[in-house]
Parts: sequence; C-alpha cells; structure tokens
Amino acid sequence: MSEKLEQFKTLLTEVADLNAVQALLGWDQQTYMPQGGGEARGNQLATISKTAHQKLTSDEIGKLLGDLEKEFEGADPDSDEARLLDVTRYDYDQATRVPSDFVAEFAVVTSKAFEAWVEARGKSDFSIFQPHLEKVVELSQRYVSFFPPADHPYDVLLDQFERGMKTADVKAIFDALRPQQVELLKAIAEKPQVDDSFLHMEYDEKKMWDFSEVIATKFGYDWERGRQDKSAHPFTTNFSINDVRITTRFEDDSPTNMLFSTMHETGHALYELGCNQAYERSPLAGGTSLAVHESQSRMWENLVGRSQPFWEHFYPEFQRLFPAQVGNVDLSTFYKGINKVEPSLVRVNADEATYNMHIMLRLELEIGMVEGTIKVKDLPEIWSAKMDEYLGIVPPNDAKGVLQDVHWSGGTLGYFSTYALGNLISAQLWEKITADIPDLDEQFRKGEFGALLTWLREKVHVYGRKYAPQELVQRVTGSKIDSAPYVRYLQQKYSDIYGL
Amino acid sequence: MSEKLEQFKTLLTEVADLNAVQALLGWDQQTYMPQGGGEARGNQLATISKTAHQKLTSDEIGKLLGDLEKEFEGADPDSDEARLLDVTRYDYDQATRVPSDFVAEFAVVTSKAFEAWVEARGKSDFSIFQPHLEKVVELSQRYVSFFPPADHPYDVLLDQFERGMKTADVKAIFDALRPQQVELLKAIAEKPQVDDSFLHMEYDEKKMWDFSEVIATKFGYDWERGRQDKSAHPFTTNFSINDVRITTRFEDDSPTNMLFSTMHETGHALYELGCNQAYERSPLAGGTSLAVHESQSRMWENLVGRSQPFWEHFYPEFQRLFPAQVGNVDLSTFYKGINKVEPSLVRVNADEATYNMHIMLRLELEIGMVEGTIKVKDLPEIWSAKMDEYLGIVPPNDAKGVLQDVHWSGGTLGYFSTYALGNLISAQLWEKITADIPDLDEQFRKGEFGALLTWLREKVHVYGRKYAPQELVQRVTGSKIDSAPYVRYLQQKYSDIYGL
Repeated sequence: MSEKLEQFKTLLTEVADLNAVQALLGWDQQTYMPQGGGEARGNQLATISKTAHQKLTSDEIGKLLGDLEKEFEGADPDSDEARLLDVTRYDYDQATRVPSDFVAEFAVVTSKAFEAWVEARGKSDFSIFQPHLEKVVELSQRYVSFFPPADHPYDVLLDQFERGMKTADVKAIFDALRPQQVELLKAIAEKPQVDDSFLHMEYDEKKMWDFSEVIATKFGYDWERGRQDKSAHPFTTNFSINDVRITTRFEDDSPTNMLFSTMHETGHALYELGCNQAYERSPLAGGTSLAVHESQSRMWENLVGRSQPFWEHFYPEFQRLFPAQVGNVDLSTFYKGINKVEPSLVRVNADEATYNMHIMLRLELEIGMVEGTIKVKDLPEIWSAKMDEYLGIVPPNDAKGVLQDVHWSGGTLGYFSTYALGNLISAQLWEKITADIPDLDEQFRKGEFGALLTWLREKVHVYGRKYAPQELVQRVTGSKIDSAPYVRYLQQKYSDIYGL
Repeated sequence: MSEKLEQFKTLLTEVADLNAVQALLGWDQQTYMPQGGGEARGNQLATISKTAHQKLTSDEIGKLLGDLEKEFEGADPDSDEARLLDVTRYDYDQATRVPSDFVAEFAVVTSKAFEAWVEARGKSDFSIFQPHLEKVVELSQRYVSFFPPADHPYDVLLDQFERGMKTADVKAIFDALRPQQVELLKAIAEKPQVDDSFLHMEYDEKKMWDFSEVIATKFGYDWERGRQDKSAHPFTTNFSINDVRITTRFEDDSPTNMLFSTMHETGHALYELGCNQAYERSPLAGGTSLAVHESQSRMWENLVGRSQPFWEHFYPEFQRLFPAQVGNVDLSTFYKGINKVEPSLVRVNADEATYNMHIMLRLELEIGMVEGTIKVKDLPEIWSAKMDEYLGIVPPNDAKGVLQDVHWSGGTLGYFSTYALGNLISAQLWEKITADIPDLDEQFRKGEFGALLTWLREKVHVYGRKYAPQELVQRVTGSKIDSAPYVRYLQQKYSDIYGL
C-alpha cells in the first residue's frame, strides 16, 4: 500500500472514531441520560461534531485525497481503494461546503430541539416545539445555501441521505405509486374489515420484550455485538461494526407493536453487522443510504415478520405466552389481524398499504417548509387537512399528529421519503431472493432465517457504502428503484387477506 | 471580563467537553457495552484522549495562559479567576510534559487491560491479566520519566491524584497510623466476636436495589441529575455538574454490601453535584483530589451509614422488607453486625478498622513495581505473603486477591493511598461538623440529612477544584491531614461495640 494511502486511512480512522462517539452521545441521550444532563450534552455534541468536521476538512486530508485521486486514475473503479476515494470525496465535498461554526450551531439547536420535542410530545403541545422547529428550518435553508444551485433546493437536503437522488425522481416514483395505492385502498375499504381486537388487549410488557428478543435472535442478531434498550422513539445506532444497538418501546394501547418494532430495528442492525470487517473505522463502513437501510428493516418487519410462514413457526409459542389474549384466536385470524389495513394516525404503526401515504404527506410539508411556502406555525392545521385528504382521518391532538416523529427535532429534513423508497427496494430485492431461494417459505415455517441472511449479507450488507444506492439496487436486481414490485406484492398479499 | 480571559475560557470548554465524552465512553464500557464493542472502544478512547490532550496543550492556550498570569499578577489570589489560572497551569504543565502519542497508547493499552482484567477476574486467573499489567507498569515508568526527578519516582504518580502530596508524607502519616490500628485490632481480637450471620443470608436483589435508592434519595441525591446502574466494580462518574451517575453491584454472598456501596457512591456523587454551577465546563469543576473525594464517600458510607442513629431511623423499614432475615434481630445486634471487625480478603468489603491495612499493602506493591523491586509476575505470591503478615489471612484464589480491584487495569498507579487519606479526612471533617451541628444524631434518628449536606456543600463541595486538597482541609478544619481524629473515632466506636 502506498505510504500516502496508509496515512490517508489513518487520518480517516480518527474521523470515524469521532463519528462513533457522537453516535454514543446520542444513544445515551435517548436511552439513559437524566434530564439534567441535557444542556451539557448539547455542548458535547457540538464540540465533537465540530472537531470531527475540522478533522475531515483538514488541509492534510484534502491534499492527500487530491494526490491519491491522481495516483489511482485508471485503477480498477470497483476496487475498495477506488471506492474509498470516491466515498471520501463525496463526504469531503459535503463537509467542506459547510462551515465548522454552522455544524456546531446545528448540534446545539437540534439538541435543544430534541429536549423540546420530548416535552411538547409529552404535553401534546406543538407551541413548545414550534420555535425550535423554526430554527431548524432556518438552518436547513442556510445549509442549502452553501451548495451550488440545484434543480430544487430540497435536492441538497435529500442528497445527504440518498446520494444522487433528486426531488424530481422521488416525485416521479411517488406519482406512479400513488394512484395504485389509492386504488388498492379503495378496493380494500369496500370489503368487510378483519378483526384485530386481540392485538389491543392488555399484554405483559416483560413477556413481550423477551419474545421480541427471541425473534431477533432467530433472525441472527448477535447479542455479543449488540443490545436492546428502551427509548421514546425506536432506533438503531452503532459505534463499530461490532457494536450495533437497537431500541424499542412498549405502547399500552398497541402492545404487539413492540414485536414489529424490534424486527424492524433488527433489520437495520443486521445490515450494519454484516458490513465487511475490513471497512471498520473507514468511510466505507455503514449502510449506503437510508432507503437501502429501510429496505432491510422493512423486509424483516413486513415481508418476513408479517408473513404467514413466519407465524406458522412462531404462533404456537405466542399463544402459549398469551393464552388469555390469543388462546382462542386461530392462525388465519391472527395473520389477518396483524395485516389489517386501516387508515391510522401514527406513521410507525401504519400498515403496509397506508404507510407510504404518511410519507407523501411529510415530503410535501418538508418541501413547503424549505421553499418557504409553508410556515411552521401552520403545520398542525395543514397536517390535519392533509391527513383528512389522504386517509380520511384527523388527529385529535398534536402528539398523535405533527409531533409524532422525532426526525425534525434532529434537523433531518430530507429524510422521510427514504422510508417509502425503502419499501419499494425491499420488494424489488424480495422478487430476486424468492427466485434464488425457492423454498424460503418452507424455511420460515421451520424458524430458519439463515439462508435469507446469508443472501442479504453477500449481495447487500458486505458492501457497506462501497456502491451508491441506485448502483447497488441495479447490481443486485438489474434495475433502478421501481415501484412495480411493491405494488405487485401489496396486491397479492391483500387479495388473499381481503378476498379482492 | 478581559477578551483574553473570555477566549481562554472558551477554549477550555472544549477540553472539558472532550473529558466529559471520555467519561461517557468509560461509563458505557463498564455498564452496557456489548463485548464486541471493546476493540473499537479502545480506539475511540485513544482518539478522544489524544484530541483533548492536543487541545489542552495547544500553543493558543499556552500563550493565553502566560499572558493572563501576567495580567492577574497582584490580583486577589483567592478570586475564581486567579484560581482558574492556577489549576489550569497545573493541568497544562502535567499535560505538556506527556506526548500525545503516549496518551493515545496509554488509552489503548488500558482499554485492553480492562477487558483482560474482566476476563481474568471471571476465571480467577492472574496470568491472563499479567502481560497487560506489565505494559501498564512500563507505561507508568515512562510517564515518570517525562517529569523532572522527584524525591521518589512514585511522587510523580501520586501527584496526579493528590496535588502536592509526597510519597514521604504519606509514609509518615501511615507510619503514625499503623501501630495504633494494629493495637486496636489486637484489642478487638481478644474480645468475643459479634454475630453477623444475618447479613449473609439470601436477600432479594430487587428489594435491596430499591432500598438502596431510598437511602440515596434521603441523602439528597437528585435523580433528575443522576442515575444508578450495575457494573462489575461500583464507581461514580460525571459528564456535567448536572449529570452525575453512580453504579452498584449485588453480591450473592454479601447481599447487604449493595446498600453500603450505594451510600459510598452517593457520597462521591453529592460532592460533584454540589459544585459551583459557575464552574461548569471549566477546570475548576470536579473534586479537588481523590482523598477529599473519598472523605465524602466514606463519610456517607461509614460515619453516617454505619452509625446507630442512622439505623434507628431505617431499621424498622429494613426489618419490614426482610422479615425472614432480620425480623428477630434487634437493632443493637444489627448495628454490631454491620460494624463487625474481621480481617477479610476484599478491600471494598473491609470494615473500618482493617480497611487501611489493605491500602498499606497496595501502596507497598505499587512503590515496588514502580521502583522495579517487585516483578508483576510475583504479585500473587507477594500479595498472599503481605495479607498473611498484615491481616493473618491468605486469598484462596486470584479473584479474591490480586485481581479484586479494577484500578491497575485503568493504569492508575498512585491512586490507592488516597482511600486511606480519605478516611482520615472524613474523621477530621466530622469533628468539625459535630461541633457545628450539635443535634446531628437527633436529625439522623428522624431520617434528616439536609443539615449535614448543606454544611458539606458550603464548606467543601461548592469550591470544586478551587483549593488544593491540603489547603482545603486546612481552611475547613484548621489543620493539615492528620490521623488523630480517625484513631479517636475508631477507638470510641469499637470501645462501645466490643466493650474495650
């Protein structure tokens, strides 16, 4: 290895360490930190992010990057070295455009915004969060201003999470998807509703927690390299390829959600845990994009965890644990119940057929905020109007409406559409997987998920950030992100359940 | 405020933030981190400590410090500003003598040493830890070599924890103390032993945990600014004056130890929580030395928590919680039981009369290792010989002997004697406190600890690191560290219990 490359990699390990530390500060803030630590935590996050930013944008790294790009001209473009330069160039250009002071200010504002969001959500009072969100929007607009004019200012925000994706691309995909989802929802609404009353009874939290960990273990989650904790909003984070943690929550009114939340986060975690170990402490570690990440979490949650074969294996144990709730509910009824389609208020609890509608709503609000055509103070009202238009229901309060998601408090405008894109990718991958592993259902019925995990590791996980998202999807499935497989999947699944 | 002073303070906030982050990395490592995260954690600790070191020793801080020292010549030497310069000068000189690379190496070595210690202790096999401790000793010797020759090389290590204290001073204090402790132990050994069998029965861990938190709450621990978790070795750490956390552990064979461990750590935590809020994110925050810190933890654990008046308040509730164990044990018997004097193997569980003997043993071993007169490989053997000589007992295995303490795995040679010095200071302060608050016993009988905490906050806690340890003791008690009050305290207490 050239001396310069070695030096370059060493410098990048420090950036990776600081990023990992920042993730730990966030994990602790959302799991165990006492309230009194909030102000100091904001300062710590600011100092670490500023320091990481300074290190990444140092003249030393900039010079080495330029020199190495010349040295590797003509080298195999698919080599790890070439891709390391490619990914670092992307990170470096993103970072050098943003001044260190801005990064530090952003960290302070979002740390306070998170605390305010927790309080606002607890009290169901948007006015507590409003001034913080206004600052976040203002900062997002300033962020955009650091970049060359794009086709749309929102492109700059989207690009942070989904390298190379344009607002117009997402709109086009959603425009193709929306009428088909609406048509499906109409067809379902005309059929008799399935029963899911048994999901909303009282369940023991400890038993549910333990069962969620049994499932995560069966999926292949390695507890020597991870753990599960509680937080207000479930998430996955990691401080190494070998320390990838998930969180979950228990909701009294929907106690079984914990299972699907754990499956979802386990999907994210398996992606990070499956990364090539050679990428540890380098920019090549991690998931390539949020949409691809979400394709993994949604696959394990929905395509696996809400499938009939999955429950053929797990249902007897579930019935044994909760005889009062589901002892007299047969598997077919249970399967229909966990796949009930019903317009609902909270995105993370939405079923597969309505989920994308929640995303489309948020995308429109974000674009409006960034353009300045939507004022933050009007969000609760617009939220209600859009919910009524898209799903025919209106939130009774802010907690179940505009305050339900943590994202904006973290300053991550541009993030939401990746959830819907993830759904689409999960179905694209699934068509390939079921072609490659014809007896997948049979394996699930036996509680075996190893072949699926191996496939995902080999085709997706191991590459980390080496391939850009669209490139990865193209390599694995033969086409770019496409809504058709997801529509086919929904149509088939709900035709069975609702007899369409 | 002068512009230079403001700039200086701002630079120091970043150092404080990095130190806080380092503490969080350590807290997580000892409480929740999965095993797989160990290697990455070592790298993260190395990067953060190196970065903190670079920031503290920057030319910018060095220049400002020099300029400000001139600007404040002739200023009130007791002003916060003068003391900030004083403390920063101490930290700066300590740090500039030690190269950044050494600091990073030290962090990597001790992170691995900690992992090895956990494994070695679990398997009770010193050989697993030995090569790591050899590296730690070698690093400690290199550390000493960065400083000008002292009266004794160990002085340099001691000074890190106890500013201004010399090996010869500690030896002199211990030499005065040892014969009196030995005499007391002999006198006790001639008397009939008290019964403490009820302490070694089976107790419910959850009930004990909850009761420990009731006591911590009564002492004044603020749960909005702290929390308690489990770890292999109990400790207190903080990431802010308003985020001070304690840990504890449950030992099956000595289940009531959890209570005293929590009281001990609560004492440490109250010290940090009571610091002047104006010192947040500055070098003036924190405890002034380990000995003064230990005076607080040992005071709450022993002078309060093992006193008759304390248990006059808490014993009825304790009996109600554990009727099978102590329902038929009267208060006097219980009080004697928790104060039983008996040579034992494990320092943290040692009674007040034998505790200092454990410290003297460790001090001799550390001095020997640093001088090179004691080889690491011989430690288990020497440990046994010294235990036999000092306390007449020999550990049956390494876990109960040389592997019992976490300290050496963290590279903290020079630390142990501060525990014994803390005992002495606690009794010195106590004579002053009982003179100032004559009805203290009466307050404890009512479960009131507010007057004691207020006294400690006003006289000790609020000053943080402003006064050096000997200076603080002198200001509060009128004399330097002195063993006489502690000997008086032990003699009086055990005369009552053992009828000497």
